[in-house]
Amino acid sequence: SIDGQRLWDSLMAMAEIGPTEHGGSCRLALTPEDAAGRRLLLDWCESLGCTWRVDRVGNLFIRRAGQRDDLEPVAMGSHLDTQPKGGRFDGILGVLAGLEVLRTLADRDIVTERPLVLVVWTNEEGSRFAPAMVASGTYAGAFSVESTLAREDRDGVTFGEALEACGYAGESPVGEPRLDSFFELHIEQGPVLEEEGETIGVVTGVQGMRWFDVTLAGQSAHAGPTPMRYRRDALAAAARLIDRLQAHALGDESGDTKVTCGCLEIVSASRNVVPGDVKLTIDLRHVVENELDALQAYFEGLLNEVGETCGVTVSQERIWASPVVEFASECVAAVERGAREQGLKYRRMMSGAGHDAVYVSRVAPTAMIFVPCRDGISHNEAEYATPEDCAAGTQVLCDAILERANR
Amino acid sequence: SIDGQRLWDSLMAMAEIGPTEHGGSCRLALTPEDAAGRRLLLDWCESLGCTWRVDRVGNLFIRRAGQRDDLEPVAMGSHLDTQPKGGRFDGILGVLAGLEVLRTLADRDIVTERPLVLVVWTNEEGSRFAPAMVASGTYAGAFSVESTLAREDRDGVTFGEALEACGYAGESPVGEPRLDSFFELHIEQGPVLEEEGETIGVVTGVQGMRWFDVTLAGQSAHAGPTPMRYRRDALAAAARLIDRLQAHALGDESGDTKVTCGCLEIVSASRNVVPGDVKLTIDLRHVVENELDALQAYFEGLLNEVGETCGVTVSQERIWASPVVEFASECVAAVERGAREQGLKYRRMMSGAGHDAVYVSRVAPTAMIFVPCRDGISHNEAEYATPEDCAAGTQVLCDAILERANR
Ligand SMILES: NC(=O)NCCC(=O)O
Ligand SMILES: NC(=O)NCCC(=O)O
Repeated sequence: SIDGQRLWDSLMAMAEIGPTEHGGSCRLALTPEDAAGRRLLLDWCESLGCTWRVDRVGNLFIRRAGQRDDLEPVAMGSHLDTQPKGGRFDGILGVLAGLEVLRTLADRDIVTERPLVLVVWTNEEGSRFAPAMVASGTYAGAFSVESTLAREDRDGVTFGEALEACGYAGESPVGEPRLDSFFELHIEQGPVLEEEGETIGVVTGVQGMRWFDVTLAGQSAHAGPTPMRYRRDALAAAARLIDRLQAHALGDESGDTKVTCGCLEIVSASRNVVPGDVKLTIDLRHVVENELDALQAYFEGLLNEVGETCGVTVSQERIWASPVVEFASECVAAVERGAREQGLKYRRMMSGAGHDAVYVSRVAPTAMIFVPCRDGISHNEAEYATPEDCAAGTQVLCDAILERANR
Repeated sequence: SIDGQRLWDSLMAMAEIGPTEHGGSCRLALTPEDAAGRRLLLDWCESLGCTWRVDRVGNLFIRRAGQRDDLEPVAMGSHLDTQPKGGRFDGILGVLAGLEVLRTLADRDIVTERPLVLVVWTNEEGSRFAPAMVASGTYAGAFSVESTLAREDRDGVTFGEALEACGYAGESPVGEPRLDSFFELHIEQGPVLEEEGETIGVVTGVQGMRWFDVTLAGQSAHAGPTPMRYRRDALAAAARLIDRLQAHALGDESGDTKVTCGCLEIVSASRNVVPGDVKLTIDLRHVVENELDALQAYFEGLLNEVGETCGVTVSQERIWASPVVEFASECVAAVERGAREQGLKYRRMMSGAGHDAVYVSRVAPTAMIFVPCRDGISHNEAEYATPEDCAAGTQVLCDAILERANR
């Protein structure tokens, strides 16, 4: 069985790269911190005798040889990038659990039939470069390599430039190696497991999500003499949009409707200027695809209505749509068996967050394992998962990987 | 009578310093552009034989000698700084109209009994350094010199540092010279004169205004798995606050209640993060002081209510309060006589915007003259006043100044 203390020590060592004020991590994708995190992992893996390669969008494939190297590898992994004020577990746990599996096998001199691959996917968070999971998406053919390399961060730096600058612009073709299957361990990032007193979430799929860039163009004007009724206040319109969207989502008794405005910017803001131009982002999610369609239609209608009421010209672009995903039943079953055989309390559940597994599931049988996180909090420096839960999830991952690699 | 074409040419020449994309001006206070604007004005005034001095907060006093230099000067002026995307007339007209008065007197070899002073007040807009009118306020004793010099812009640069850097840190004591009276010509910045087909606003006073810095502290969380009901979304709270404040102000049939949120910032914003921390500014105005008290009380109550409803900790600081001002009746009467004698259509009115005249009126009899601006638009690159209206306002200024300086 895996070594929970060693796993924890690796998590804490990784957290020393890009630490934030309140105990979280800041390793935005393709920054020097991201590169330092990858280097630390590679040092650990090289000392186990693993080999590695990097593809053209920076995805890192770390390989442990099997008895039958002609067979496609069984893969595990997640991401090392974080939010600007992110936690120490989101993504990192899935990668370092994979490392722990490799170390456990090395300790026991176990060589699996199929080779194993530990994958670090680039820019999962979507915080520096939108959308999220863009590099696993490119691997799976959802985005072209060229479009991914051309994506820009807020400062206009392209993904390709950032990749070069941080030293992880690889040469290996995107889409290789092909995988037999993929398993991703992750913190739940929501409150369900903790509340229900369960240790393992057997993830059966992922809710759909859509991202929008919205612009509101009114007219800047003086805050003093401009009568309220004359104003074409882009921020007042944005406020109304956000408030009504919130009310709509809160009104869904099932709790399945999720709306978030994560970024909002006033162009040339000044205290005594009625805002003329506002840009904002909207994130819509639902577990049922046609409910998500309805949510999008509601949002679009509301945006137009608010624009008309406030005398503001509105426009929006859907920059990303990730449909509802169902994972491969044989992989889900392998995870469930692992949890049951370890005697752990578990539940089948959908993921509310996107994960690299979403895209990988398009090209290889895939499943995910969740462990609880404190108060359901994630994308926050305070994110926390107990050493025991991290170890339990890693054990389930190890069991599923071994079953699959030796079948 | 004054030369309207020469006035217009000066306005257009000044607008060449810090031009913006859509025909406006960007000369934020105490930047190189502000300094270049002052230099241009000084070149013009020096060639008329005027002398000048700068006080410790950068206020510029340009003096034309009178017959009786022992008497306090009659003053006119306004400001040369602009909003980030400001217009070519707001403030500038009042300064260049003063220049045109000086030039007209020079052309005719007229020497007034009292000396004349053309004043350029520093940082009127309040956009770079809050609050607005801070340097005329310091002149009038509303703020200490030390506190003004210590005020910081968004990048942490102090007023004092910016003053040194742009070369206008003067040595003359703040509060000198004392003025016999002060007249400020300005564009209305609202729609009334244009709508009523009037050329001159005889300004009897200025509405009260209060500025607040507001912070909302919720909890950042993941946009996907975090149930709507668990969220403590600081932006959703801000949106509700803004929307309810708008509705409150729009509900005032008299149109006298004004509320504006000009700046709003999400700390560590990311598309898929429920905003944990938001900072925003609120500007409240009313023509009646106790109605402004009531408006502030409403805002404070609403902020607390919104904080409770949204699970967000709120706090606010009132960083500025400028009470309702009534100008000196003898100066207002001089302006009104000027308008009447020129045969111009005029009305008595309150100003919705703050002006340097607000603070100067505490230490010298003061009045203002308004001219229409197109569509009432100001604090906008599209701001416009016709050459005819600018000239008419300047003529009224000239007449009032001469009456006062020779009384
Ligand atoms: N796991 C995770 O935080 N992914 C980011 C993509 C998303 O927004 O769901
Ligand atoms: N005139 C003008 O734009 N003043 C700025 C001060 C205010 O916000 O009213």
